[in-house]
Amino acid sequence: MENPSSSSTIEKLQQDCYNEWMSLQAKRMTELKQALSNDEKEDDKLRDLIRTVIGEFKDYAAKRCEHSRRYSSNYFAPTWNTCLENSLLWIGGCRPSSFIRLVYAMCGSQTELRLNTFLRTNNIDDLSTVLHGETRGGIDGGGESMSDLTAEQLYKINELHLKTVEEENKLTIRSASLQEDTADMPIAVTAFYKEVIGEADVAVERALDKHEKDMAGLLAEADKLRLTTLTTIVDILTPVQAADFLLAGKKLHMSIHAWGRLREQSRLEASGGGNSGGEVAGE
Amino acid sequence: MENPSSSSTIEKLQQDCYNEWMSLQAKRMTELKQALSNDEKEDDKLRDLIRTVIGEFKDYAAKRCEHSRRYSSNYFAPTWNTCLENSLLWIGGCRPSSFIRLVYAMCGSQTELRLNTFLRTNNIDDLSTVLHGETRGGIDGGGESMSDLTAEQLYKINELHLKTVEEENKLTIRSASLQEDTADMPIAVTAFYKEVIGEADVAVERALDKHEKDMAGLLAEADKLRLTTLTTIVDILTPVQAADFLLAGKKLHMSIHAWGRLREQSRLEASGGGNSGGEVAGE
Repeated sequence: MENPSSSSTIEKLQQDCYNEWMSLQAKRMTELKQALSNDEKEDDKLRDLIRTVIGEFKDYAAKRCEHSRRYSSNYFAPTWNTCLENSLLWIGGCRPSSFIRLVYAMCGSQTELRLNTFLRTNNIDDLSTVLHGETRGGIDGGGESMSDLTAEQLYKINELHLKTVEEENKLTIRSASLQEDTADMPIAVTAFYKEVIGEADVAVERALDKHEKDMAGLLAEADKLRLTTLTTIVDILTPVQAADFLLAGKKLHMSIHAWGRLREQSRLEASGGGNSGGEVAGE
Repeated sequence: MENPSSSSTIEKLQQDCYNEWMSLQAKRMTELKQALSNDEKEDDKLRDLIRTVIGEFKDYAAKRCEHSRRYSSNYFAPTWNTCLENSLLWIGGCRPSSFIRLVYAMCGSQTELRLNTFLRTNNIDDLSTVLHGETRGGIDGGGESMSDLTAEQLYKINELHLKTVEEENKLTIRSASLQEDTADMPIAVTAFYKEVIGEADVAVERALDKHEKDMAGLLAEADKLRLTTLTTIVDILTPVQAADFLLAGKKLHMSIHAWGRLREQSRLEASGGGNSGGEVAGE
């Protein structure tokens, strides 16, 4: 990384794929917002859009899988991410269980909003809204559908949570095992007997190629779990809720990226360096 | 990371600290090698050197702790690492259990070496060496002490292994929980209600500051576990074994860094770009 301005063809491919994905997220974010603000909230149109969004995630995972087959290391701390994002990574992406955490966060914040409205106005109609979520559209910005989750939906989400954490743990253990393998034969032992540090070695090259291939397999498994978790949540939710949830996920991803850059820019400016910073906000 | 050539004061401090650490590792590597190749193998001198090496790891961890207090994100996928190294990271460093894996690897490879010597020469004296490790210095490059591990030592190493994995798991769970918190209030909910993606927000800034502080605490805990594991291994081993083990650890760390750069350089050259590559080997 001493010369990060030069990147290999494969890294450029990986980065282009990421940039396309981020542009697509911005586009779908706008579409989801429009579809939700449409008073009619036509379920068929929403369902189509949700299917498209999920399908695109699947395509993105397939492309990552293709690009990581030989060179997977880049995906475990991509240079195109901010360091904040990289500190949040789990096997090359977000934790699948954080999707569920987001469902709960949206549900909780909406109930809180309604409760606050009731306490402020002391209007018995608002209490009914708090308890049963009978009306929609009373709060600006959408997302209100998420406090309408039924007991059955919450039960299913909880079931999914337990299953997801279990699957995550399995992949975490496999990841640990692959990482530890590099402290074993042949890599550690070859390193010990080499007179010159970093001298090229066929056995080591082969072992590192295998390591990157195994890590690519793990990345594909993690993406599969992310996709399954996302699909299952969307299936549990109503179309309006699913659209609110997908919108929240996209906004969260894009915001963390932007806030991470803003923090890096602030530190740079505090050090007396840096650019104009105009590219940071509102991307 | 769009403009990685500019880095903040704190990142420069962190990187300088890492560069100093790597230079120190190279220096101690040479000293350990010299001390081990000295036929007298004076235990007192070895003990002093081992104490120094462990003390320096402690100092390095203290400096990282100091530098990560406000800005810890950089440590979870440092820009000064190769992407290979970053794909092997566990909470800002190597897995403590990989130290133990290295003990086993060195022990296994030495026994194998001795067995091969016996099979090649069919000399009954060599068999005695295989079984009891009675002689030293017969194999070039050191490390032979590692096959002399007694049953008691192996028992203690195994006990340490179980305890280390347990502690690692606890920290892994805490790390997962801190990562997931960013998909909750206030960050996720604020992201949802912002009209402009990445617009500065006091509550989010405060939450991200807290997040980085908590992650810094986790990094300190992980460094503490790395240090405890290292110290316990060294206490279980004889001075010669401990010096062989520390030498193997340093060589592995430096080699992975150099091999990672070599692989990045190869990919760059395969893409038709890159530098002379002269800086890669033999650093």
